[in-house]
Amino acid sequence: MTGTAPPSDRPGRGIFVTFEGGDGVGKTTQASLLEAWLTDAGRTVVRTREPGGTEVGVLIRDIVLHHRGEVSPRAEALLYAADRAHHIETVVRPALARGDVVIQDRYLDSSVAYQGAGRVLGRDEVRQLSLWATEGLLPDLTVLLDLDPVTARARLDADDKPFDRLEAEKESFHARVREEFLALAAAEPARFLVLDAAQPPTELAAAVRDRVAALLA
Amino acid sequence: MTGTAPPSDRPGRGIFVTFEGGDGVGKTTQASLLEAWLTDAGRTVVRTREPGGTEVGVLIRDIVLHHRGEVSPRAEALLYAADRAHHIETVVRPALARGDVVIQDRYLDSSVAYQGAGRVLGRDEVRQLSLWATEGLLPDLTVLLDLDPVTARARLDADDKPFDRLEAEKESFHARVREEFLALAAAEPARFLVLDAAQPPTELAAAVRDRVAALLA
Repeated sequence: MTGTAPPSDRPGRGIFVTFEGGDGVGKTTQASLLEAWLTDAGRTVVRTREPGGTEVGVLIRDIVLHHRGEVSPRAEALLYAADRAHHIETVVRPALARGDVVIQDRYLDSSVAYQGAGRVLGRDEVRQLSLWATEGLLPDLTVLLDLDPVTARARLDADDKPFDRLEAEKESFHARVREEFLALAAAEPARFLVLDAAQPPTELAAAVRDRVAALLA
Repeated sequence: MTGTAPPSDRPGRGIFVTFEGGDGVGKTTQASLLEAWLTDAGRTVVRTREPGGTEVGVLIRDIVLHHRGEVSPRAEALLYAADRAHHIETVVRPALARGDVVIQDRYLDSSVAYQGAGRVLGRDEVRQLSLWATEGLLPDLTVLLDLDPVTARARLDADDKPFDRLEAEKESFHARVREEFLALAAAEPARFLVLDAAQPPTELAAAVRDRVAALLA
């Protein structure tokens, strides 16, 4: 709220890894491969996502979903930020304090990218709101799985999860989301690992492991 | 979120009046007297409060109340800000656009004063959060009913609403809330009308009417 993020006061020795990118790029597959590798190596892993799987998060999600179109964009952004604050405080920070590895599907970069592409609220406002909610917690590593929206859509179709007509009409929106993600990665090269998600899953997994291994060392 | 409030884009010719002060100072009585006077004068009045009486507001309030102590201070502040965003967007701004007079029991000054007295989150952060939520909507007039907490407590006792032991222990907290309200009023003398709430209700009502009449002129 003050225009700059408060300093992160994250305790512990855990590692916070997020996966970002549009639907159909393979985030779940890569998160699972990383989890399996870490578990085999004896690390405790917490797999999570937002809305956060907390009881409070489910209630917040219900409000947003059941009142879509009635809730103003700012109220919706504030509700998602409340869910994020609660999830980070009650799930992620305790796990990091225990020394666990947290693997999370989507985090603040998704909020910024989708909001930036939708152009209702400002990117910086959305980012500052998330940083205030989480007391400035940024991931140690963010893996951006980059794929052109047409290929991602074909994957989802093959997956028996066809895009509906509305979704298809939003193709230009998905292209803007992709550009927003790439811009975020360019702005923070030390945090981001950008991978071409058209590569075979095993090659992508090896690249992710290399970066995580370096963080664990 | 940018450290300064965005400009208010409030349309219409309505007037937004808020009543502030601790419990037991007479906010409800004065709001009712003002409403009666305005209605007699042919004005349309919207009486409201936050949490906002909207369906979404009730759901948000339920989350905060049913999970008190489990929800982090930031998540709670964000939930209340979401309620405020929704309430202002769907109730207050439409009323002001119609030219109505909105009389509201408590608004952002209460958030700032109680948070400032509690010293968990910063005053400025809480104020900026509210201003972002409401796109910078400030009241045309804020009536601060100022009363020492001991007198306010005696009034509540006489009202058969005795403070419980916990409440009594919080006397120093209520004294801090009063100081916070007075500091807010001192910072914005043009918006605030500070009244000694120990005066008779009819005298207080006359002072409020004078200021509202000037706004309507």
